[in-house]
Amino acid sequence: MAIYDVSVPLRPGMPTYAGEPGPELEFLKLIARGDSANVSALSLGSHTGTHVDAPHHFLDGEATVERMSLEALVGPAQVVEFADAHHITAEDLTAAGIQRETKRLLLKTKNGRFWDDDEFHTDFVGLTGEAARWLVERGFALVGIDYLSIEQFHSPTHDVHKTLLGAGIVIIEGLDLRAVPPGVFTMACAPLKVVGADGAPARVFLWD
Amino acid sequence: MAIYDVSVPLRPGMPTYAGEPGPELEFLKLIARGDSANVSALSLGSHTGTHVDAPHHFLDGEATVERMSLEALVGPAQVVEFADAHHITAEDLTAAGIQRETKRLLLKTKNGRFWDDDEFHTDFVGLTGEAARWLVERGFALVGIDYLSIEQFHSPTHDVHKTLLGAGIVIIEGLDLRAVPPGVFTMACAPLKVVGADGAPARVFLWD
Repeated sequence: MAIYDVSVPLRPGMPTYAGEPGPELEFLKLIARGDSANVSALSLGSHTGTHVDAPHHFLDGEATVERMSLEALVGPAQVVEFADAHHITAEDLTAAGIQRETKRLLLKTKNGRFWDDDEFHTDFVGLTGEAARWLVERGFALVGIDYLSIEQFHSPTHDVHKTLLGAGIVIIEGLDLRAVPPGVFTMACAPLKVVGADGAPARVFLWD
Repeated sequence: MAIYDVSVPLRPGMPTYAGEPGPELEFLKLIARGDSANVSALSLGSHTGTHVDAPHHFLDGEATVERMSLEALVGPAQVVEFADAHHITAEDLTAAGIQRETKRLLLKTKNGRFWDDDEFHTDFVGLTGEAARWLVERGFALVGIDYLSIEQFHSPTHDVHKTLLGAGIVIIEGLDLRAVPPGVFTMACAPLKVVGADGAPARVFLWD
């Protein structure tokens, strides 16, 4: 069984979405200082690294992250590659060879190259609003992408997020899919179960 | 497919191991304040709630949490119930009906009742040192338990942790197994991939 870890490492200085506070790890106890154990504490923005968005992120009062459907988070997922650099359209999705039974879709794009450096790049590929509606109409449960947003930088309307989250579709952002070939895998997307949060960091595994 | 979420919710005021800082969620942006989205930041101790221990927790300089074996974290796991309240011994493990092929073992004990309140209870059930060595000798990859430590409170030697971590066995602490019957499941144990950490909060799913 080949297991792919499609989560990015959490570390100070990693790229984060504009203004998002990245990870900080502070050691509260250190064996080297005479303590019996090494014990650290972590802080980070809820949308740092690989993470999920809950409806409450853009739809005030809607479901928070601990209420996400387990059925959406665990099960078969299809990785589809989009080689072009423009935003992914409904036509692109129609032509992508997505299997009829696919309910969890992971979008592998040129974004992957951005993980090579610590800069936050704003020219990343996302979905168009029509593509988001295409996913809603077909009853998708989850969609993931390989950089820090599923929607163009500084969208004036946040149409993509609102469309997907309004339909209860789980959004994963910040995947690293570079090592994964296109195809169908079993996925476990495991966000921290943070009560009342608009999103949460997640570890995501794929396997054959 | 029945999916069990065996992770405890992360929230302020939840029980944590003595001195461990629990979760805090701070909203940096609020739609109610005129922002375009709700955006929060999270802080918590690395051993808060459901979490894994990495070797570096008790063995200074040994592997940190981002280096944990994916093969240990994902695959079949057996949930075994121990009804008595004493610490689990090698004899208990021998008599427990653990299948020969089991390499990931989840211990369901009377600890589960402690999740009913917000107090940190120190009289929890753990493993004895001999039980830890029993697991090492048989080549287990992972062991999990249903409260905040796998070892008696204020162990003078930390024998259980050092034995398990020294053998590269992944430790999960803080599981909530109350809803899960004994048996074999597929498990995904997904700790945050925090570079350099002695442990990390995790979401853990079991399914048939």
